[in-house]
Amino acid sequence: MSTTDRRARLVDELTAQGVAGLLVTTLVNVRYLSGFTGSNGALLVPVEGEAVLFTDGRYRDQAAAESPDLEIVVGRDVLGGMAARVVGADPWAAETHSLSVDDHARLVEAAAATVVSAGTVVERLREVKDEHEVDSLRRACLVSTDALTWLYEQPLVGATERDIARRLEFRMLDTGAEAIAFSTIVAAGENSAIPHHQPTDRVIGTGELLKIDFGARVEGYHADCTRTVVMGSADEWQREVHGAVLESQQAGVRACVDGAAVVDVDRASRSSLDASGWLNRFTTGLGHGVGLQIHEDPFVGATHAGRLVPRTVLTVEPGIYVPGRGGVRIEDTVVVTSGPGQPEILTDMTTELLEIA
Amino acid sequence: MSTTDRRARLVDELTAQGVAGLLVTTLVNVRYLSGFTGSNGALLVPVEGEAVLFTDGRYRDQAAAESPDLEIVVGRDVLGGMAARVVGADPWAAETHSLSVDDHARLVEAAAATVVSAGTVVERLREVKDEHEVDSLRRACLVSTDALTWLYEQPLVGATERDIARRLEFRMLDTGAEAIAFSTIVAAGENSAIPHHQPTDRVIGTGELLKIDFGARVEGYHADCTRTVVMGSADEWQREVHGAVLESQQAGVRACVDGAAVVDVDRASRSSLDASGWLNRFTTGLGHGVGLQIHEDPFVGATHAGRLVPRTVLTVEPGIYVPGRGGVRIEDTVVVTSGPGQPEILTDMTTELLEIA
Repeated sequence: MSTTDRRARLVDELTAQGVAGLLVTTLVNVRYLSGFTGSNGALLVPVEGEAVLFTDGRYRDQAAAESPDLEIVVGRDVLGGMAARVVGADPWAAETHSLSVDDHARLVEAAAATVVSAGTVVERLREVKDEHEVDSLRRACLVSTDALTWLYEQPLVGATERDIARRLEFRMLDTGAEAIAFSTIVAAGENSAIPHHQPTDRVIGTGELLKIDFGARVEGYHADCTRTVVMGSADEWQREVHGAVLESQQAGVRACVDGAAVVDVDRASRSSLDASGWLNRFTTGLGHGVGLQIHEDPFVGATHAGRLVPRTVLTVEPGIYVPGRGGVRIEDTVVVTSGPGQPEILTDMTTELLEIA
Repeated sequence: MSTTDRRARLVDELTAQGVAGLLVTTLVNVRYLSGFTGSNGALLVPVEGEAVLFTDGRYRDQAAAESPDLEIVVGRDVLGGMAARVVGADPWAAETHSLSVDDHARLVEAAAATVVSAGTVVERLREVKDEHEVDSLRRACLVSTDALTWLYEQPLVGATERDIARRLEFRMLDTGAEAIAFSTIVAAGENSAIPHHQPTDRVIGTGELLKIDFGARVEGYHADCTRTVVMGSADEWQREVHGAVLESQQAGVRACVDGAAVVDVDRASRSSLDASGWLNRFTTGLGHGVGLQIHEDPFVGATHAGRLVPRTVLTVEPGIYVPGRGGVRIEDTVVVTSGPGQPEILTDMTTELLEIA
């Protein structure tokens, strides 16, 4: 789907809302709808007529190259430039969930029309990926899992969490990642009990859990993957905890089918942990959408009102965290497929308990 | 200066504004005032009484470790938790320059007090660094310049812009950077004419300009440095352009003294480029503050109303950009010192035109 098609889908939504157009000020939404990747830009999408991209002089050439089909207005005051094009009898919509109070006030003051809220209309469109987006995500996930497979073949006992994180990141950057998707989590031994542990100088020893949560970014799209392994031979406790998380994770993934309620994905993973007696050690959310942002809609939880549709991309990442002792998380990025079939797992790499020599 | 001292300075400002306190929702300001580095948090700073930090369950332990002197409220709804503590006869202030319209509306609805705007009061405090901040910036800049010195000793002709960027980034991460401060710019030959060029697979050849704009991050603080060199021997045109930029850059740096008007820094660099006949090829801003953010107040331009005071940290980065042919930028991160003395140059590395073998 081209950015033209994406804007056409947006116009359908805006028409249904009865607004004259949308003032897109959330950068990632500007990128989604125009292709422009600069750090300062806004996009006016009218229901009638053509979209206009606003940016500053630094991005004149880049905007022309990335958004060749759009009129581009270059100026120091991007919001003011956009406001000058807001006219008509119908209200215009703004992204009030991210637009600041002060910028909103400036827009309202300068615009020759009423400005209302559109809700997260672009974020909702972004929940369902097009083929090009799924392809970028697939490649980001492949770079990630290939790098982790490579890492597991390196000597790791005796290295620090920080060393391991850096080696994995360098490998991804050397093999196709344009950037790291987010700060890599490498957590050894008792640190694996901390859900969002930042790598330290702690040295990894034989017999310890090693939890790694990481991902590559490709063409703006983020991979998100977690695996937990044991250095050497796993003991009974490690096997039990890993087994319980794996069962829960597989139950969650199996629930990611066309038409399923989002709450049922959450329920499937939690029921499994409840049955194995570990539910009280699961202290984070179950998963989230992933795409141009590492965390985006839909956020998987007990209160989400929506249903999954094909090409929704989300993570499923239950965990068990026992403070002072250790923890296990297993996370895949998956794509919902059409019909009754199972989701495609983009982070396609074994989730079994590996014992790394 | 401790975070306690920073909050005391803020309370002085708030008292002068006649508000009951500030609802700090800008993450980098939360970090500045509390030490908390998580990705979800808010800070209530009352004029009377103690500050309270709000975050979610993921950051319970981290918040306690990073902000041991603060009351910490953990909950899923950070804004709601904060709003419940907003009481009293006087108005409270919010950071309306960054708080979204929707979050502001939720705060106003839930708070038992009036909510007004505080302007960028914390950003203004952040313009003047304390000794600890200057030390972090000094170390970030040292990691950066050491890495560039190392890079210049490597074989570069025949490498791509992307390769060179990656090698420089890896070096910084291997020698003390916790992260890269921003996407490294490596621009070879005619690409050096693009102010914010992203590295490509273009190969660098003998006799070409090589412009590198880069920096390390240390303890949250960003270095920002640009150097432009020639691979092999410089020709007359390259010498002329580099000489004009160097003169302009030195004029700007010399103007960064205690009590100087910010506009005079801009004027000094521009006058130099005007005298050498290149002013029309200088198409970006002259510089910006740098600290917990890579771009922060003060932004150096012709309209800034302020004056420099000691321990203001800013960049001075004039350039000449000739589309299709090439460009030169020279940038230092400098600290304004007390009295009539010259600024301390944190990116302490030659700015002369190097001819790299």
